[in-house]
Amino acid sequence: MEAGMGPAAVPVAAVLPAGGSGERLGGATPKQFCALQGRPLVSYAVRALERINWISDIIVVVSPENIETMKSIVEKYGHKRVTVVKGGITRHRSIFNGLKVFAETGFSNQLLQKPEVVIIHDAVRPFVEEDIISKVVMAAKEHGAAGAIRPLVSTVIASAPDGFLDHSLERARYRASEMPQAFLFDIIYQAYQQCTDYDLDYGTECLHLALKYCKTNAKLIEGTADLWKVTYRRDLYAAESIIKDSLSQQVCVIADAKEAVAQVGFLLCESLKSQIKVEAMSISLSKNDSHPQINFSGECYNFIYISDKRYDIGETRQLVDMLEKSNIPLLYPVVFISVHLNISENISFNIGMEELSGIKKFAREVKKKNILVYGLLIQYK
Amino acid sequence: MEAGMGPAAVPVAAVLPAGGSGERLGGATPKQFCALQGRPLVSYAVRALERINWISDIIVVVSPENIETMKSIVEKYGHKRVTVVKGGITRHRSIFNGLKVFAETGFSNQLLQKPEVVIIHDAVRPFVEEDIISKVVMAAKEHGAAGAIRPLVSTVIASAPDGFLDHSLERARYRASEMPQAFLFDIIYQAYQQCTDYDLDYGTECLHLALKYCKTNAKLIEGTADLWKVTYRRDLYAAESIIKDSLSQQVCVIADAKEAVAQVGFLLCESLKSQIKVEAMSISLSKNDSHPQINFSGECYNFIYISDKRYDIGETRQLVDMLEKSNIPLLYPVVFISVHLNISENISFNIGMEELSGIKKFAREVKKKNILVYGLLIQYK
Repeated sequence: MEAGMGPAAVPVAAVLPAGGSGERLGGATPKQFCALQGRPLVSYAVRALERINWISDIIVVVSPENIETMKSIVEKYGHKRVTVVKGGITRHRSIFNGLKVFAETGFSNQLLQKPEVVIIHDAVRPFVEEDIISKVVMAAKEHGAAGAIRPLVSTVIASAPDGFLDHSLERARYRASEMPQAFLFDIIYQAYQQCTDYDLDYGTECLHLALKYCKTNAKLIEGTADLWKVTYRRDLYAAESIIKDSLSQQVCVIADAKEAVAQVGFLLCESLKSQIKVEAMSISLSKNDSHPQINFSGECYNFIYISDKRYDIGETRQLVDMLEKSNIPLLYPVVFISVHLNISENISFNIGMEELSGIKKFAREVKKKNILVYGLLIQYK
Repeated sequence: MEAGMGPAAVPVAAVLPAGGSGERLGGATPKQFCALQGRPLVSYAVRALERINWISDIIVVVSPENIETMKSIVEKYGHKRVTVVKGGITRHRSIFNGLKVFAETGFSNQLLQKPEVVIIHDAVRPFVEEDIISKVVMAAKEHGAAGAIRPLVSTVIASAPDGFLDHSLERARYRASEMPQAFLFDIIYQAYQQCTDYDLDYGTECLHLALKYCKTNAKLIEGTADLWKVTYRRDLYAAESIIKDSLSQQVCVIADAKEAVAQVGFLLCESLKSQIKVEAMSISLSKNDSHPQINFSGECYNFIYISDKRYDIGETRQLVDMLEKSNIPLLYPVVFISVHLNISENISFNIGMEELSGIKKFAREVKKKNILVYGLLIQYK
């Protein structure tokens, strides 16, 4: 698929309002800037959009006092295709500012190319998957507006002004409106242009504006549980646990292409499969090859390299260099385990004290770059 | 307040439906039996009700296949005032069964004394506080029915049968109905007796039944964020983090009543106060006193004992015995740090190898009882 061309074969961009104050969280830091495993929540949401290559531009809208913070986050985590825009005093005003970048000059350094469909997501919904974004975009292309929904967790009730129960809603007929939502750009932009000040100040729901001002009934798409919005402190705890879980639940096994080793790699993958997600790769490294071809996918943070050669620090260096260039260690610590099998009967691998201290020194060095190197020597005859 | 007499000076009991299948959690174990820090969720909810001494009976309603599991949980964690009752196939039928224990024979070993007000809570809301329970009970006494509510997190929308947006609700007019709820027993029991099979099978909301069958509009009480219901796996993560946090955020400082030591205890409390919740106690232990009077409150899991006497294993044993009898270590690991200050200029505290190995042996022994003992000897002149 061409970059910037979505599943409906039209240009797609995204607006990510990140201007909330996080009052409900009860902390000083707005929740979108709270760090989970050392990385701000908003960076996870940007990453979730950024890894979808058919989204051409990601407009992050933040309150004026957080512009510099957001720009430094973009730089630190190497985010691409991001434009940081100054928000308004309410959510709707911020989204409107985000949309103006595509339609009016003066809202960012340059007028960005207007997309046909625009996704509106949330900085505090870090786990959105490509699947639901695709569905919402395709539905928006067809029907003008679309949004993800979820079943209600609690019964919703209407209270009378005196604080007593008026009536309760029949749960099956109602849904919680979640994000992402998507719109034909012209529809949502027109809705915002016609929007009253009251709606800009007190509304929160984009689907409502498309209906009210453009008579566009949004198509509703059932989303998965991971679309939930980080609202309270407990949600930060939950998000952190989910991230930790996913970090430790994936491993990439890289085996030397030689047959005996490849077989060990295969057996290791098979035995790990039932426990965690495993990716397998086969490579052949040589001392003269300074540009080996490994394409690290960017979703894995644990690597096991298996070889039957004598431990060679140059080889480890090559692999670690590739990892570093992949930018993966920017986001989280990467674990790299180098396993050396002695399966030949003739040679014995012994590591001298000098070599060992060289390895230790190297490990200390790359630890500063967020890569944890471990070595393992296995002798079996 | 007399046991069994609530804040409204009437007998109060509680029904805790715990019969759910936990489908939304996506695991084999129903969520109320999932272990958090080794202890099932339902046990936290029971504990939250049980520590309120004016609740006379706690009726836990579980599905037939979990009766034995629930009984063993009650025994293992030393829960009191609990009656385990067999549930029906829906939430409403289970609650009805729970209420019948007070009105009909044959639902438990004995007919329990009918309360004037009955609380209905949830096995999957472990963090409910006495404050909100009191408020709900008092409102139920006055108005016949009452329930906790929370602001909506997401906008609620009505979907048309074709899967398109029909309309969105104005968020400010609606609330999420949460637990606890409370009712005059006669009202809710009458509502269940008159209830149609349709309502028993497809309804979930007790407030709705009180309104529909007894024309009782419930008083709505704004609750705190911690009333939320453990629904998805992420909620289990959140609950576990909250429990861990609260475990490490409290310490009880026990100081010997002697003046110099009491002062050190006071200073320690003062300096810890800004970081964590601190409780202070003063005691005087003597070798001849085999029944020292310490009343451990049951809400603390970290203890620091300060003394200026030479380390005496008998003294530690006394304190550890008391902790054990308090049943606190049944729920979580208890940390007990024994600090011995040498503030006299004349004596020097030295611990011999033999004594040291005796202490280590004792620590290993009590570790099996879930008590972690540490010793600290501080010399300053």
